[in-house]
Amino acid sequence: MLVCVLGLMLLSGAGVASASVRNYWVAAVPVTWNVVPNGHDAMTGTNYSTTDTVFPTIVYRRYTAHWRRVLPNQPSAGGNQNLIPGPLIQARVGDTILVHFLNRDRLYDRVHSMHFHGVHYAPSSDGAYIPGFSGRGASVKPGQSFTYRLRAGSDSVGVWPYHDHSQSMEDSIAGGMYGMLSILGRHERAPDREFEVVFAPQGQFQTIDDRAFVGNTPVFTAFTGQTVQWDVMAMGSEHHTFHVHGHRWIGADGVPRDTQTVGPAESFAIRWREQDPGTWLYHCHVETHMMAGMIGIYQVKRRRS
Amino acid sequence: MLVCVLGLMLLSGAGVASASVRNYWVAAVPVTWNVVPNGHDAMTGTNYSTTDTVFPTIVYRRYTAHWRRVLPNQPSAGGNQNLIPGPLIQARVGDTILVHFLNRDRLYDRVHSMHFHGVHYAPSSDGAYIPGFSGRGASVKPGQSFTYRLRAGSDSVGVWPYHDHSQSMEDSIAGGMYGMLSILGRHERAPDREFEVVFAPQGQFQTIDDRAFVGNTPVFTAFTGQTVQWDVMAMGSEHHTFHVHGHRWIGADGVPRDTQTVGPAESFAIRWREQDPGTWLYHCHVETHMMAGMIGIYQVKRRRS
Amino acid sequence: MLVCVLGLMLLSGAGVASASVRNYWVAAVPVTWNVVPNGHDAMTGTNYSTTDTVFPTIVYRRYTAHWRRVLPNQPSAGGNQNLIPGPLIQARVGDTILVHFLNRDRLYDRVHSMHFHGVHYAPSSDGAYIPGFSGRGASVKPGQSFTYRLRAGSDSVGVWPYHDHSQSMEDSIAGGMYGMLSILGRHERAPDREFEVVFAPQGQFQTIDDRAFVGNTPVFTAFTGQTVQWDVMAMGSEHHTFHVHGHRWIGADGVPRDTQTVGPAESFAIRWREQDPGTWLYHCHVETHMMAGMIGIYQVKRRRS
Repeated sequence: MLVCVLGLMLLSGAGVASASVRNYWVAAVPVTWNVVPNGHDAMTGTNYSTTDTVFPTIVYRRYTAHWRRVLPNQPSAGGNQNLIPGPLIQARVGDTILVHFLNRDRLYDRVHSMHFHGVHYAPSSDGAYIPGFSGRGASVKPGQSFTYRLRAGSDSVGVWPYHDHSQSMEDSIAGGMYGMLSILGRHERAPDREFEVVFAPQGQFQTIDDRAFVGNTPVFTAFTGQTVQWDVMAMGSEHHTFHVHGHRWIGADGVPRDTQTVGPAESFAIRWREQDPGTWLYHCHVETHMMAGMIGIYQVKRRRS
Repeated sequence: MLVCVLGLMLLSGAGVASASVRNYWVAAVPVTWNVVPNGHDAMTGTNYSTTDTVFPTIVYRRYTAHWRRVLPNQPSAGGNQNLIPGPLIQARVGDTILVHFLNRDRLYDRVHSMHFHGVHYAPSSDGAYIPGFSGRGASVKPGQSFTYRLRAGSDSVGVWPYHDHSQSMEDSIAGGMYGMLSILGRHERAPDREFEVVFAPQGQFQTIDDRAFVGNTPVFTAFTGQTVQWDVMAMGSEHHTFHVHGHRWIGADGVPRDTQTVGPAESFAIRWREQDPGTWLYHCHVETHMMAGMIGIYQVKRRRS
Repeated sequence: MLVCVLGLMLLSGAGVASASVRNYWVAAVPVTWNVVPNGHDAMTGTNYSTTDTVFPTIVYRRYTAHWRRVLPNQPSAGGNQNLIPGPLIQARVGDTILVHFLNRDRLYDRVHSMHFHGVHYAPSSDGAYIPGFSGRGASVKPGQSFTYRLRAGSDSVGVWPYHDHSQSMEDSIAGGMYGMLSILGRHERAPDREFEVVFAPQGQFQTIDDRAFVGNTPVFTAFTGQTVQWDVMAMGSEHHTFHVHGHRWIGADGVPRDTQTVGPAESFAIRWREQDPGTWLYHCHVETHMMAGMIGIYQVKRRRS
């Protein structure tokens, strides 16, 4: 059992260049979620009561082999919360990824699935409900499990969404059933810090990783000299513009950028070598979204010498 | 007369490398359109009555020379319907395209026009109403015709929208008066399959080629080994994200992508060599759009050997 | 004093290759603004009364040194109005830009700031309110001033937004407190014509440079043979698609384009050598935006020989 867990961790570690099969054990589980844990929008001073911010929902959660024990959804470096988004699926080009999914939705007793962007798979691992065509992996019943077999090709490098694509899709995504894959090249160097930013609505709020307002959204941290990577995606029905203060990156047109559109299920990874110490804002620049909570803090400290 | 028709067809064929003038005969004609012909959303099981889905409208329709006989709007390979979108205008760099447009709108008795993106033209062929400046081509009256003279330059390669840009523009586009140009390089190889995907709203529905829900939207088909091209554009007032399951393409930033934003009048062509047999979904990933009908089926079969 | 003004003008001139410090003197001042000065939508014939189109607001305005005398917000070549957008901040890679900002908001008596995209700065010049962290530059009180110290790095080439990012941000941006930076490479040739296009909502209207409808929005002009540059950005909460009739440019993917998405705080510069004489439309291709005023005229004349 100990060996099994260690083996899993080795296979899952993005730094292991020779790994070829990575196993992820994921379950859909009920949780109680608070979109605004501190009950407060620090920018405007508005307070929110828990009747507006707390609700039961279903999330993707990472486990050790055979769903024995919970694991954090994100590696410690990220600074993300550990329930939403779901487990960060990390792999390298050439790897096979086996995602063992167990539906533990005793809350709504709904079918669920996982549909993965960016990787290769046979139709049986598509995880998307198509009347008359899709199979068991598109409609995993409560109490049942399904293993999705994915392959990271050379055209899988980057970051990608995954999400429920069963008949329950609309409710599940609204409830937070989404996460990301992060695929590196075979010999690509991993960043020192990797931050997941998911823009999605949540009731009256606009959230980052399903949390709203400075003080509730993730506080990402780095030291000067570190390579930081931002994994950005959107879920829902709206387009957003990702902006980080005091920083920029090379845009699609080869020219620098500090604001970039991301629509539903679009995703991109941004990297830079950090050299600007300070307390900075990152946010969606759609004004109504920013005002409804889609904003957070990024803290860069000078490297200790 | 027979010679004339044959000549037209030769000149219009995208595979004819030496062609230099291509004639298209198009008319605006009244039709009765059904957005949901089978009355059914197969994903949710919802039924729709014809009172919600059928309406009279004006569409662009392709004809033989001098509007004598109707022709299909799309070459047979596409799998599109043959009324909306309008005729697929195909040409190669260096070609002159003459679009002979006849306004047969006896339904609303409105002026109409054709405004083309991507190609070169003098202001007289712009087809856009500008008070005090525009001429006859911007306001073609019922019963009258106008010939737009277009030139495919080296910067015209790709796919482009065209649409009504007369004073009737708002109603016309809402009714389906739009189509695409597809321009190849002088010696570029044509794809084996070419699919037109137009995202546009239609009343309470979100449509692909003005049809809503799996079973009504186009079913595109290909064999493994074929080169497929997706011509994607949007009309209306909303941004969309085009997604195909189990496939990807090279994005603007040179990295692979499987979801891409397209806003009103934006357009892009995507190509891949097909190697993934199966029944796949293609759809707009904006959730409210997908739920309102913006989703279809793409079927890939193994090449018969 | 005369020497000082001349010195400022020399330093601010984008054509001066050896300049290394550029000073801009800007104040937030109350004005009365009319979104539809001629009271008329020429496309539909609709009339608007001043009760719907005129309102008091705060704008950024350019001054000579020490805010002694007003200067035009845009160089004469542009054709823009001279109140909204704010001063065009022009510089070259390697330059230091000092923006001396004075808050003269006696209308609402609010704090204001300037937050700049694209350039480098220390957190003290970020101009963005962060509770518990930000300093005086994020909340400049009425009657007070602050100097933002910016640096144009090699990754600052292009055009960028600036805007109020104080606690008053929401109201300020809605009122027109935004503008652009235009950064050239160290030895890059400046365009012959530079047009600023800011897409932003204004009450019931959708505006370009805070004006609605043909006849009110800027009329941009050029001669054949000139190099024209369009500086495009958006403010607010909506995505837009920028389109110019009869012209195209090289898009992010290296292929030609004539329509391009721009979301809130996104920006891009487009250049071409003009060779198409005529009266053309430029507009946002989002239909509801175009119909609500986001459309203008671009006039190209043959070069006099």
